Amino acid sequence: MFSDTTVERIRTVELAAHVGERVALQGWLHAVRRLGGVTFVILRDGWGTAQAVAEEAGQLAPIVDGAIQPESVIRLAGVVTASPQAPGGIELHQPEVEVITPVAEPLPVLISKKEVKASLTTQLDHAVFVNRHPARRAVFRLAAGVMAAFREHLNGRGFTEIQTPKLVASATESGANVFAVEYFGQKAFLAQSPQFYKQIMVGVFERVYEVAPVFRAEPHDTTRHINEYVSLDVELGFIENHFTVMGVLRDVLAHIFASLEARYPAELELAGASLPAVPATIPHIHFAEAQELILALHGVDVRGEPDLSPQDERWLGEWAQREHGSDFLFVTGYPMAKRPFYTHPDPARPGYSNSFDLLFRGTELVTGGQRLHRYADYQAALAERGLPEEPFATYLETFRYGMPPHGGFAIGTERLLMQLTGAPNLRLTTLFPRDLNRLTP
Amino acid sequence: MFSDTTVERIRTVELAAHVGERVALQGWLHAVRRLGGVTFVILRDGWGTAQAVAEEAGQLAPIVDGAIQPESVIRLAGVVTASPQAPGGIELHQPEVEVITPVAEPLPVLISKKEVKASLTTQLDHAVFVNRHPARRAVFRLAAGVMAAFREHLNGRGFTEIQTPKLVASATESGANVFAVEYFGQKAFLAQSPQFYKQIMVGVFERVYEVAPVFRAEPHDTTRHINEYVSLDVELGFIENHFTVMGVLRDVLAHIFASLEARYPAELELAGASLPAVPATIPHIHFAEAQELILALHGVDVRGEPDLSPQDERWLGEWAQREHGSDFLFVTGYPMAKRPFYTHPDPARPGYSNSFDLLFRGTELVTGGQRLHRYADYQAALAERGLPEEPFATYLETFRYGMPPHGGFAIGTERLLMQLTGAPNLRLTTLFPRDLNRLTP
Repeated sequence: MFSDTTVERIRTVELAAHVGERVALQGWLHAVRRLGGVTFVILRDGWGTAQAVAEEAGQLAPIVDGAIQPESVIRLAGVVTASPQAPGGIELHQPEVEVITPVAEPLPVLISKKEVKASLTTQLDHAVFVNRHPARRAVFRLAAGVMAAFREHLNGRGFTEIQTPKLVASATESGANVFAVEYFGQKAFLAQSPQFYKQIMVGVFERVYEVAPVFRAEPHDTTRHINEYVSLDVELGFIENHFTVMGVLRDVLAHIFASLEARYPAELELAGASLPAVPATIPHIHFAEAQELILALHGVDVRGEPDLSPQDERWLGEWAQREHGSDFLFVTGYPMAKRPFYTHPDPARPGYSNSFDLLFRGTELVTGGQRLHRYADYQAALAERGLPEEPFATYLETFRYGMPPHGGFAIGTERLLMQLTGAPNLRLTTLFPRDLNRLTP
Repeated sequence: MFSDTTVERIRTVELAAHVGERVALQGWLHAVRRLGGVTFVILRDGWGTAQAVAEEAGQLAPIVDGAIQPESVIRLAGVVTASPQAPGGIELHQPEVEVITPVAEPLPVLISKKEVKASLTTQLDHAVFVNRHPARRAVFRLAAGVMAAFREHLNGRGFTEIQTPKLVASATESGANVFAVEYFGQKAFLAQSPQFYKQIMVGVFERVYEVAPVFRAEPHDTTRHINEYVSLDVELGFIENHFTVMGVLRDVLAHIFASLEARYPAELELAGASLPAVPATIPHIHFAEAQELILALHGVDVRGEPDLSPQDERWLGEWAQREHGSDFLFVTGYPMAKRPFYTHPDPARPGYSNSFDLLFRGTELVTGGQRLHRYADYQAALAERGLPEEPFATYLETFRYGMPPHGGFAIGTERLLMQLTGAPNLRLTTLFPRDLNRLTP
């Protein structure tokens, strides 16, 4: 027990405002370091870390003696003292400790070093405590910051947040790559995206967004695929065409980065993230022109290909950087053949669509575009692809009863974080990733 | 086409600031009403409605002629004119209309009257446009307001938002009432709640919350059950006991109601919602005392029952109103036998738990409590219930490596809205409800 139990608990990130005072911290025993006769004890709470110094015999006894292991939960009191050598310039002197929950055995994976030294599999197996690592959790705090900034920007522009069902009656967009669910004797499916529902809700609120999990049963085992992720979805009505949507996306991203920079400097540094500048207008190039450019610059003829390859995207990213000084590039007008049936064609070039991909540093980050809005156009689009109307009956009812020109986009939270932090694997930007082989923890 | 195409589009809710100006609105043809030689046209946009008046022959021709049906998408220009008889005191004169998307046939369910006159089934079958009804969509705008206020309050108190996996390897809390998913040849389940993950994340961020869907495979066909809903989950560490959690819950609810009152007056009125006052301290009564009280007041002996019945809850609600003038009452200390294995017992009365239910107007609104935090206590609790440790291995790892006393609660968004709006069925507070028989729209 503390000799002085009246000391108020503060958070580590509040220490600087309390120099000269005796305060108490609560948290986890993050690390113990010995230098000469001095023991440095690092406490980690939910927001940061702080150092206490035991200079006299008997101080912080259970820690200094090794009676408790790292990750023990403790209350630590001391006098807040400015010290140029200490991390952050502050440390606790004359420390006292109270053990709240002792840990008896050492961790199977150390989380007190600058980096976690273990295989990816081991790290993910032990994510319940590896996620406590300061650099690791910084990524997840940034995820919270991304979601908050996304909502804040859209709330200020008349958008309404929606939550749409994840259990659906039929495989929505593609008919493939959906998880099947046993639903009271029926077959249900997990929504691959809120695409249909966010369009339907344009009829209600005109401008909507959703932050929610989506489920992809793609059997890909790569560094860039997981099977459940958090999608940031936007859809809005009364657009001119896909360029209206691209303008909204540009502003959303600019606000997200500005907000992270202002509010999460410590997390950005811990996570090793570098924020890009978003140009006032992101440069754009039409799909067909992009293929011509690749031929002209690299002598590779990809004209006639219905999509861009990763190499094509890298070349275009380099070109955008060189020509426009931009980390971002919109590629517009992807061929209709490679886009879903609800995609709006380019009225001037019907083989191409009013859609776009946003490339970030040469990799696709966001997909979006204008959707069909007339009932007759949906009927024609389904007929053209040989799809029956019946599985789409309630979706089609939306268009039968009046929809404006509309469009939207979806950002994958984890992919955005992967690109910002340079993480080598998407799984490291996900709290508890789900992949082909992983359902735990 | 407009004779004056340069007029800027504004939203209906912005009209009052433009009296005397010629403006344009965009939206849906909500209703047409004829009185004498005058036709009133109501336009609905994403935020409200506005009236235009056609007083001269030829004005608003396609609408007045009946050439287009309600829900047609239109652009409507006119001079903003103060008019005491008009709804909201404002209407558009000298109107012109441009048809953006015509609707050819009448709606199967009218959405332009004060109430939707159709059976619940019909309303839900046609939710894609019935949700456009002003009173109906007001409920869903309030849902957005509840989520926003919930996050805002917690963000200001050091909480971090998390998104945890919905696909899990084993049936978590109960082992019953979970949906099974075919997961790449394995069996997975849909999370009933983020309970385990939010506890795990207390080890990372100390204070966390999540707004996300949960899935309950309960085969109940009642007015108060749906099988997918949006749960507002909170969990925090370093609590004294469940009373710390109850204090947080009280403040969260007070902020939600204050925020709705300040920001959604129109929606509250349209939805017929009445906001309760939240006492500075919500009264509380121990489960055992509540049973004694019921015996004393109503002569019914429910002592020894392990739970409260709906009738018990109504009686307690009446008592709280009479005795404390409060719509809210905490019942604390539910018997351990009826609570999940992770529940923390009352150290002073081990048959009872450090848990609570919050009753609102005599109905359970929120459940919460303190959880076990010591590894040995989890091992003992599982053993006592005859449960093996293996399915809980990664969850248990959290407690093996240091957890503080912690607890939390979960609010069902739809139930909160049902009670605020007096909706007769939970399905009416859900955009696209999922129940025993319903997977569409």
